[in-house]
Amino acid sequence: MLGSETNSNDILAGLNQSLLRNLNYKFRLYGPEKLIKKKIEKYGALLKASEIIDCESYISMDDKPSDILKKKENSSMFLAIRSVSEHLSDAVLSFGNTGALMSLSLLNIKTLKGIKRPAIASIWPNIAGESIVLDLGANTKLDTRYLLDNSILGSSLASILFKIDNPSIGLLNVGVEDNKGNDEIRSASDSLKELSKIHNINYHGYVEGNDISIGKTNVVVTDGFTGNVALKTAEGTAKLFQSHLNDAFRSSILSKIGYFLSSLAMKSVKDRLDPRVHNCGIMVGLNSLAVKCHGQSEHRGVSYAADIIYSLLENNVNKRIQHYVHEIQSKLQD
Amino acid sequence: MLGSETNSNDILAGLNQSLLRNLNYKFRLYGPEKLIKKKIEKYGALLKASEIIDCESYISMDDKPSDILKKKENSSMFLAIRSVSEHLSDAVLSFGNTGALMSLSLLNIKTLKGIKRPAIASIWPNIAGESIVLDLGANTKLDTRYLLDNSILGSSLASILFKIDNPSIGLLNVGVEDNKGNDEIRSASDSLKELSKIHNINYHGYVEGNDISIGKTNVVVTDGFTGNVALKTAEGTAKLFQSHLNDAFRSSILSKIGYFLSSLAMKSVKDRLDPRVHNCGIMVGLNSLAVKCHGQSEHRGVSYAADIIYSLLENNVNKRIQHYVHEIQSKLQD
Repeated sequence: MLGSETNSNDILAGLNQSLLRNLNYKFRLYGPEKLIKKKIEKYGALLKASEIIDCESYISMDDKPSDILKKKENSSMFLAIRSVSEHLSDAVLSFGNTGALMSLSLLNIKTLKGIKRPAIASIWPNIAGESIVLDLGANTKLDTRYLLDNSILGSSLASILFKIDNPSIGLLNVGVEDNKGNDEIRSASDSLKELSKIHNINYHGYVEGNDISIGKTNVVVTDGFTGNVALKTAEGTAKLFQSHLNDAFRSSILSKIGYFLSSLAMKSVKDRLDPRVHNCGIMVGLNSLAVKCHGQSEHRGVSYAADIIYSLLENNVNKRIQHYVHEIQSKLQD
Repeated sequence: MLGSETNSNDILAGLNQSLLRNLNYKFRLYGPEKLIKKKIEKYGALLKASEIIDCESYISMDDKPSDILKKKENSSMFLAIRSVSEHLSDAVLSFGNTGALMSLSLLNIKTLKGIKRPAIASIWPNIAGESIVLDLGANTKLDTRYLLDNSILGSSLASILFKIDNPSIGLLNVGVEDNKGNDEIRSASDSLKELSKIHNINYHGYVEGNDISIGKTNVVVTDGFTGNVALKTAEGTAKLFQSHLNDAFRSSILSKIGYFLSSLAMKSVKDRLDPRVHNCGIMVGLNSLAVKCHGQSEHRGVSYAADIIYSLLENNVNKRIQHYVHEIQSKLQD
């Protein structure tokens, strides 16, 4: 599926890279056929594995949710999501309007049995490696049930993507003591303690904002409001750091030489924390996966997102989630 | 007032530095008299401006709020706060247990007339300069009235500390559109729009997490839960960045030489974002100021905090807050 903001060369190059690693991949590309046909030529493997569905209309970043349902029925995003809800495709990958992707997916693909609301999860870099953080903005309402759903969804993702058996789950709070936070979080914590008696739920307890970057747990669970603010604050802080660093390096001739000599090292830091490479939001809890990539993704970001989708599908992420939900529901009925 | 974690040399050196800039400062130092007397000798000015109140007992980081009220009546923090509530001192500066400082201050110093709950504010560095962010953890409950109180408190602080007439206020949300967020935030936003018709309230609208570091507004208002998570996430991100950078610089001989040449530039970045220098939580909304400094503050952090207190007292911060509250209450009665 082709959005309108990311360079189509980057999308095609990224998909092609992922295809070379995941040979069974098939793609349905939604967008202007003429343009895609012309650009896809140099990627022989991708050309063979793809079907192009011509559509000129697309949902822009400024389109309002109310307008989309009325006026954008022939847009690339709408048609791509419909191909998922009609079981022609297994997942949808978008580079466009997150809100539109969220509401159209919820409406057409619908949530998994036993999951109240989907969540947006992201792979967050930390000192130890990576963790799954969710929800990053699908539901801004604080609700104990959503926090429990997010724990199941995050744990399923982490076990597949990080290839670990019992990912540890942390509940984001303002401190680690039992009395911290609010009623909804304390109630979710109590339930998770109960559920951790079930083999597959490995509840660590409360974690704080700085524990995300330390990597104290494999999964960090929070509501969509807090998660969204935390994610954007982290992005802002990384940019601030970068900006101060650039200023500092320009401040003297010695530091300029220093910058030149260490520029490769600097580049590797930028790459490791660059949202154009790593920022993809995985919408979980729906009957099929929907993944949103950063609007200005580079080919590496595209191939990274495509790899994630492939890995989740190959490992039957939804079946695993349903298994957890079933285990928990039977436990709660005991 | 002397806590137990920060090096007492750093505290005395920092207070002395601030005293040389703020000649009318007087200090009451709470702690072990023998130790303080020995160490203060080399700071002639500070020695003259200080009274030492001997107390061996102190509140540790592990003391529980319930125990503090019962068992720590002779601790340095308890006595220092009492000297404020008894009008012997104008403000209290602590390097100890934040929770204890918060609850003892609330109990003894009490809130200003018209302010429901105090808030913890901090000066947050951004690309453009600095902004005031609050609440960072005093009240974890989301409440429209608290958000309005925080707007008044933050605006008063910003106008004094940044020497600007009408500081712009942003309300932290997950997007800038009117329909974003939850009922409490939308209701606070509506009230702030009304209040911005009063000359002194300059409400900008919603801001997002990344806008804090950009410095889109002079004041960023949020609830104590979100603010606490945002602050700690930012600190964690800065540490992650630093850790990756150190790894990267160690990765080759050229980058090591580069690091050496650019180490001064690097140091200036660390200083600009170092919580040991800048992390001080200003408790506002009480009848007197209480300021909490980072547990491992250096002398620069101590003198920075002392300067802030002096500036706020000199500019009658509480009088200014009361003026705002009065303006708003009469407006709301119209």
